[in-house]
Amino acid sequence: MSKIHINKDQIEQLEKQKRVHLINSLGGFKSVALVGTSDKKGNENLAIFSSFFHIGANPPLIGMIFRPSPPERDTLHNIFETGFYTINHINEAICKQAHQTSARYDEGVSEFDATNLKSEYKNDFFAPFVVESNIQLGVEFKEKMDISINSTTMIIGEIIQIYIPENCLLDDGFIDIEKANTITCSGLDSYHKTIQLDRLSYAKPDKEITSLL
Amino acid sequence: MSKIHINKDQIEQLEKQKRVHLINSLGGFKSVALVGTSDKKGNENLAIFSSFFHIGANPPLIGMIFRPSPPERDTLHNIFETGFYTINHINEAICKQAHQTSARYDEGVSEFDATNLKSEYKNDFFAPFVVESNIQLGVEFKEKMDISINSTTMIIGEIIQIYIPENCLLDDGFIDIEKANTITCSGLDSYHKTIQLDRLSYAKPDKEITSLL
Repeated sequence: MSKIHINKDQIEQLEKQKRVHLINSLGGFKSVALVGTSDKKGNENLAIFSSFFHIGANPPLIGMIFRPSPPERDTLHNIFETGFYTINHINEAICKQAHQTSARYDEGVSEFDATNLKSEYKNDFFAPFVVESNIQLGVEFKEKMDISINSTTMIIGEIIQIYIPENCLLDDGFIDIEKANTITCSGLDSYHKTIQLDRLSYAKPDKEITSLL
Repeated sequence: MSKIHINKDQIEQLEKQKRVHLINSLGGFKSVALVGTSDKKGNENLAIFSSFFHIGANPPLIGMIFRPSPPERDTLHNIFETGFYTINHINEAICKQAHQTSARYDEGVSEFDATNLKSEYKNDFFAPFVVESNIQLGVEFKEKMDISINSTTMIIGEIIQIYIPENCLLDDGFIDIEKANTITCSGLDSYHKTIQLDRLSYAKPDKEITSLL
């Protein structure tokens, strides 16, 4: 493929929205999910994020990045106030509703109501799960780290509740999230379903990789 | 879908490898790419990572997580020693070679040689790009943050060189990474290509979302 080269000066000179689209596309396909929270009084909030990343399996830790702006501010406020949040995978059927949660609703409006997604509470976990989501995680806030370079905030949480479709959990612990209809996103606004190419064996020097399927 | 519930105690009691597979699957589809580095003497290193995340567009910042183990240690060492690295998207044609870079080769062995991927240097950027990759980023190391909770390390870099196929850059700055054959991964070892569902308009309260396609 014939390539364009864009250097640092050209990146800096891009019109703001164009740069936002460009840079958001460059990291590759992203984990995208709905974060459910509630304040102490039970006022619910739901917001879409695409900045999740795996930090470790023991303890099971997941990270995410927050910008200092609404609607992310409400989610962050509730996490600090209550210590709990849910991460709910998005599937094709709820893709538009999930995207709609990024609208800046007036204070007091629940994105669950505004987008017709249903909340549910189970096993005494404080934060609301999204009923329509096939993979749901209950997460306990563990640590906040300020990223001073651009005033964003990293939040680390421990996964303490897991709900997954029973036919998606394989014997070795792998979850077939494609079978659970989980989708991915790229850039700010592009959503994609997936087709599995392969599962590959653990790599060793001088040994041919084999398919695990 | 009928769901299984796994709670904190059950997660802790899982056999180690099973827990690693399970927790790595939970975050959703991940950005996966090859990180190219070189030490001061020009000894090249190439390693696959799936822990990239967008931090901001102005300046253009990308984050990643490193565990304190090889082969990630070599990559981290070279980043600290030289200040530069490349992030190269993976496509279906090089998926197995990319996965093979995770093998623990002896010191002095370049994963470029071991996996038959070709390195290239351009526009005076210090670190090696992967020729077979359609989207290539040149990144300058900016900041290291220690994540004490599990002894991992977060690295923040600024994207200062971008190479993308010219037919994949849209007018609004969005890069069609699917058209560039970029793939995604889930868990430790599952690779997936994608099918775009839609690009959705900027969400506003009381306004219907429309397709940008």
